[in-house]
Amino acid sequence: MIMKKNLKEIPGSIVAPAGFLAAGVFCDIKRLGTGKGSNKGRKRDLALIVSEVPATVAGMFTTNQVCAAPVKVCVERMKKGMAQVIVVNSGNANACTGRQGMADAREMVLFTERALGFSAGRALVGSTGRIGVTMPMDNVRAGIIEAAVELGCTRTHAANAVEAIMTSDTRPKQIAVEFKLGGKTVRIGGICKGAGMIQPGMSATGARPAALPHGGLHATMLGFITTDAAVDQKVLQAALNEAVAQSFNRITVDGDMSTNDTVLVLANGLAGNDKFKIQNSKFKIFQAALNHVCLELAKMIVRDGEGVHRVVTVRVNGAKTVQAADAVARAVANSALVKTSWHGGDPNWGRIIDAIGYSSAMVVEEKIDIGYSTVGGKKILWSLKRGQPTKAAFKQLCAAVAPKEFELHINLNLGQAGAVMYAADLTEEYVDFNKGDVGDPSSLGG
Amino acid sequence: MIMKKNLKEIPGSIVAPAGFLAAGVFCDIKRLGTGKGSNKGRKRDLALIVSEVPATVAGMFTTNQVCAAPVKVCVERMKKGMAQVIVVNSGNANACTGRQGMADAREMVLFTERALGFSAGRALVGSTGRIGVTMPMDNVRAGIIEAAVELGCTRTHAANAVEAIMTSDTRPKQIAVEFKLGGKTVRIGGICKGAGMIQPGMSATGARPAALPHGGLHATMLGFITTDAAVDQKVLQAALNEAVAQSFNRITVDGDMSTNDTVLVLANGLAGNDKFKIQNSKFKIFQAALNHVCLELAKMIVRDGEGVHRVVTVRVNGAKTVQAADAVARAVANSALVKTSWHGGDPNWGRIIDAIGYSSAMVVEEKIDIGYSTVGGKKILWSLKRGQPTKAAFKQLCAAVAPKEFELHINLNLGQAGAVMYAADLTEEYVDFNKGDVGDPSSLGG
Repeated sequence: MIMKKNLKEIPGSIVAPAGFLAAGVFCDIKRLGTGKGSNKGRKRDLALIVSEVPATVAGMFTTNQVCAAPVKVCVERMKKGMAQVIVVNSGNANACTGRQGMADAREMVLFTERALGFSAGRALVGSTGRIGVTMPMDNVRAGIIEAAVELGCTRTHAANAVEAIMTSDTRPKQIAVEFKLGGKTVRIGGICKGAGMIQPGMSATGARPAALPHGGLHATMLGFITTDAAVDQKVLQAALNEAVAQSFNRITVDGDMSTNDTVLVLANGLAGNDKFKIQNSKFKIFQAALNHVCLELAKMIVRDGEGVHRVVTVRVNGAKTVQAADAVARAVANSALVKTSWHGGDPNWGRIIDAIGYSSAMVVEEKIDIGYSTVGGKKILWSLKRGQPTKAAFKQLCAAVAPKEFELHINLNLGQAGAVMYAADLTEEYVDFNKGDVGDPSSLGG
Repeated sequence: MIMKKNLKEIPGSIVAPAGFLAAGVFCDIKRLGTGKGSNKGRKRDLALIVSEVPATVAGMFTTNQVCAAPVKVCVERMKKGMAQVIVVNSGNANACTGRQGMADAREMVLFTERALGFSAGRALVGSTGRIGVTMPMDNVRAGIIEAAVELGCTRTHAANAVEAIMTSDTRPKQIAVEFKLGGKTVRIGGICKGAGMIQPGMSATGARPAALPHGGLHATMLGFITTDAAVDQKVLQAALNEAVAQSFNRITVDGDMSTNDTVLVLANGLAGNDKFKIQNSKFKIFQAALNHVCLELAKMIVRDGEGVHRVVTVRVNGAKTVQAADAVARAVANSALVKTSWHGGDPNWGRIIDAIGYSSAMVVEEKIDIGYSTVGGKKILWSLKRGQPTKAAFKQLCAAVAPKEFELHINLNLGQAGAVMYAADLTEEYVDFNKGDVGDPSSLGG
């Protein structure tokens, strides 16, 4: 629980903001064949996140051209700018499922609206799990009804919703913050999932902006954020664009971008604050809080990445352009040799400068600095200065890369631009986990 | 030993062509501290490849902007178009070694020329091994003298030269072929090394051509080819460009491109054939033979890749452009999730279509076909047709990806262009090998 100026972490996750409810149930989407009632020990697999009143909505979606049906349905429905419920399932990604997949995703939102008595167009949908298998819609409908009943009984089911969106995640990922905005108390809560197929490259429409990095668009991650702030749709989308650009779009576990990556935010206005315009002082306060929620959630994904032992913040500075800084950060963060050396606790600058050199950015070997610090630490131990090894002792360098989390600093000394990536090591456990159980077609992940 | 029309594999490696000699010695470049004479059990680490007469030379070099001193020296010396000896060492890459490194690489060629009594400018140099450590020049000079003496005694030391260029390679990689060219018998021989840091992207000057794929320039691999063909320099370079484009530049083990990648070919003309022009029928015969040598050597690198269990030929067809086909092939061949599924013998088309979708190529999900065949097999078992799973049984698909080598076929159904990548799986052994021994600074590879 951290305290920043005017920003306090609070318990409650996505139901911390006023007027939000959540539920999570088990409806056997993987068709494990357990009968009704044998819920115990089974992971929940369907969640509802509900606002008591219609909310402004903003979203960011995978730019993968192979894009799941629920993403397509959300992109369509975003145009209305308003929503009141998100239905999410794990166990089946509803990706590569053709026309039936689109029909099923539409049926999920329509059935949810009917179950909750909401007007048409108020529901959004997210899915994660197996690719290429059609949704077991009888189970889904039963789950939605059960979750709707659960919502009617009590308001404290955020933990069940978090569990229901997990796939290979080993722990729930959630946060909530509280801050003052023009005299009113505003809250933002969030949950997310993701552990493998993680290097999101999301945009507001799922289309690729020219500015998105090269082929480096690469996870299923789902993030759902609630707030009781009163925010106009365009302002909310602008804030989300910025927050995702600095958080979910800056993480990589394995460099693979999923077909289903989605972040949605619902803002129901119940905090009663005055609305604000982009770039005014109240916007900046809201943006800072949303940035904090997204960044903390994004880092939780990297820390819980499949087989991950070490988390490394790669900070590139001194680039000529932000694109160049980003290209260098992604080349280093996704290099198999750099990632295995992190796993080994090996301060191998040779592999790092090698990756810098083959990145798409223009670099000059004789200008490159490489060093290490603790997380957020001001003191950098340089292993390379201007392309040449420093006198830092090998033992000292080993000590710098020994902690579970550390920062890698790269200065290209060519300009003023910078970029950050939150990256993970590559371990035997990652390989073992992802080589899958042959003979189990459910290993198809998405 | 294969037979093609007018192309016969023969023994003899790089000394099969007339007028070539080779030697390999141990001179303790890693400074393991063994005394002279204790050569037994120690891997050789310095080789000389010599033509009895001055030869035409062509070369291809890493496009990594962080480029080792020996590469820089070769690029300089290539301008002369003639060479007679290549001095190569393992154990030290002479990369990121600054001015001292350049001075050492120059001293290596000058000392070699003097030791062999050749005129100035006749030697080229290649290095592989640790990055960022200056060369132990006393050892190198002793090694060059010892190798020169060895050359004087007998001509049958190709096997020693092959051993001397190996680093993490578990076996020697060599080939020779013989063919008829205008009535004369011509021979081409080749050796190479490489097992990790393998996704070469080489050009004739080490500069990046605009056509080279995106950020996907990514190994130390060294290849040395000898031929007794009489070939003009420009013709030889054109043939090498094409042969490398279809072989060494189409392999990936881990997606990392080294600072030292180099392929050199020496053509000494002793076969006595008439010289030929680009694109005439004799050129095509020579090109086909050189292609065969380069492709077989390149495949040996993938098969002996660090921790590699399975080798997969990724064939992309139906792309709008060659660049698009290449981008799709590289995205699939370098996806951590695809590579771990290959290791697991898991026909996971979900991960494959996911990687296709995030590649920089424009694709249409509803048009994508994915299937498998045996190596060179005509019959393809499709797992996905037009974006939808086929009725192929899961067991049948598992059987298709069970062999040590198989082919993955991707048809985008958008155009006529294609591309091939020779790729490897990602295994626990790769991670274990590359996480290195902490406390051993010699793990810095290059």
